[in-house]
Amino acid sequence: MNLVVVLVAPRNPLNIGAAARAMQNFGCEVLRVVNPYQVAFREAVSAVSAGPILQSAQEFDTVADAIADCSLVVGTTSIGHRELKHPLKLLPPGAKAIRRAPGKTALLFGSEKFGLSNDDISHSHWLMRIQTIDQSRSMNLGQAVAVCLYEIARSPVTPAEPKQSRPATMGELEQMTQMLLDASRRSGYMNPVVASSTENKVRRMVRRLNLSARDVSVWMGMLRQILWKLGNSE
Amino acid sequence: MNLVVVLVAPRNPLNIGAAARAMQNFGCEVLRVVNPYQVAFREAVSAVSAGPILQSAQEFDTVADAIADCSLVVGTTSIGHRELKHPLKLLPPGAKAIRRAPGKTALLFGSEKFGLSNDDISHSHWLMRIQTIDQSRSMNLGQAVAVCLYEIARSPVTPAEPKQSRPATMGELEQMTQMLLDASRRSGYMNPVVASSTENKVRRMVRRLNLSARDVSVWMGMLRQILWKLGNSE
Repeated sequence: MNLVVVLVAPRNPLNIGAAARAMQNFGCEVLRVVNPYQVAFREAVSAVSAGPILQSAQEFDTVADAIADCSLVVGTTSIGHRELKHPLKLLPPGAKAIRRAPGKTALLFGSEKFGLSNDDISHSHWLMRIQTIDQSRSMNLGQAVAVCLYEIARSPVTPAEPKQSRPATMGELEQMTQMLLDASRRSGYMNPVVASSTENKVRRMVRRLNLSARDVSVWMGMLRQILWKLGNSE
Repeated sequence: MNLVVVLVAPRNPLNIGAAARAMQNFGCEVLRVVNPYQVAFREAVSAVSAGPILQSAQEFDTVADAIADCSLVVGTTSIGHRELKHPLKLLPPGAKAIRRAPGKTALLFGSEKFGLSNDDISHSHWLMRIQTIDQSRSMNLGQAVAVCLYEIARSPVTPAEPKQSRPATMGELEQMTQMLLDASRRSGYMNPVVASSTENKVRRMVRRLNLSARDVSVWMGMLRQILWKLGNSE
């Protein structure tokens, strides 16, 4: 399974361990942890029960770094309450889409207490929700990981259709996003007062484009030229 | 859901709590515990996080007593190793059978360490297994309960995904394309010699983006501003 599980700011070593155990159960090997509560992370990794997945877990400072080599990023949410600006899929169709994704997919889980922040979510292509009875109460982190991986692993893997060009990686998309933001700033499109919300809006939009690596390089060529010209005019 | 979750000889209060939490998530209310490790059971029930399911959990001395009022009894197992004398269903068909059962169904989970004993199993009509990759390693108890209840509660009909913004019309896409081409010309990106092939390339690229009407208007806002700024510099 070409899937990376990313735990963002987890606080409980038992949950980190449980996530790793579910990964082993369902054949998912790469665990990444962003900005974890250090005591928890050390404790999880050094536990007697820690298997190879935990021991090779990679640690990152930011979500952007953790997903840089992925071409699809899916955030998980328990929502209801938050105003969603992202497309939302329920788990069964979401899992199907993940199974069919041609490149490496990152599945993001937020902290036990707060879930994913809007900033974390802005890196996602779409959000996925496990359909529970009580929308008011979120699932336990380890259990949410288990249910998601169960559903993703459930059916025979449908081989992805051959794509003409490989999908862009998140690193490439972020580079393009930065150039676009730069152009927005230099042209005066971006109002400094609401800059951060505009930034997230633009980031989300670029993720929705479903760009191939080749398209990204075309975009970057155009933007580079536009930036050069805009720069001259300052 | 006319389902009773029966934990046989659980030893870890966190697992008992996790089972109850998953039950609440998926709308299953009756928890029964057979011969639990007393310290663990007391601790689970008295935890601050203990909801109504845990507080009304019933305790029994034997499996027979715990399932006396049920008309279908299903044991869960991680198998491979044990010689099975019972019919075995994988989770998806098993869950379907449970959903269709007319009376009260008991779903048995064994202890964290040993699973269900042959004696416990003898009370079951059939066994159910979650299909994992590594048959050698069992699932965590709380996670197994969550995955089983998720599958049993999943609706036969997948609810429609929430609607997204309407897709952009071709007219809108062409307007955006023209602005992008204009920016390419004014910035010097477009080489006049190969202009028409570049134009087509850009047009195709914009069509591939799968843009919503809302996204197109954001793009056009940015491009309008960039064009205005580029125009000034001519």
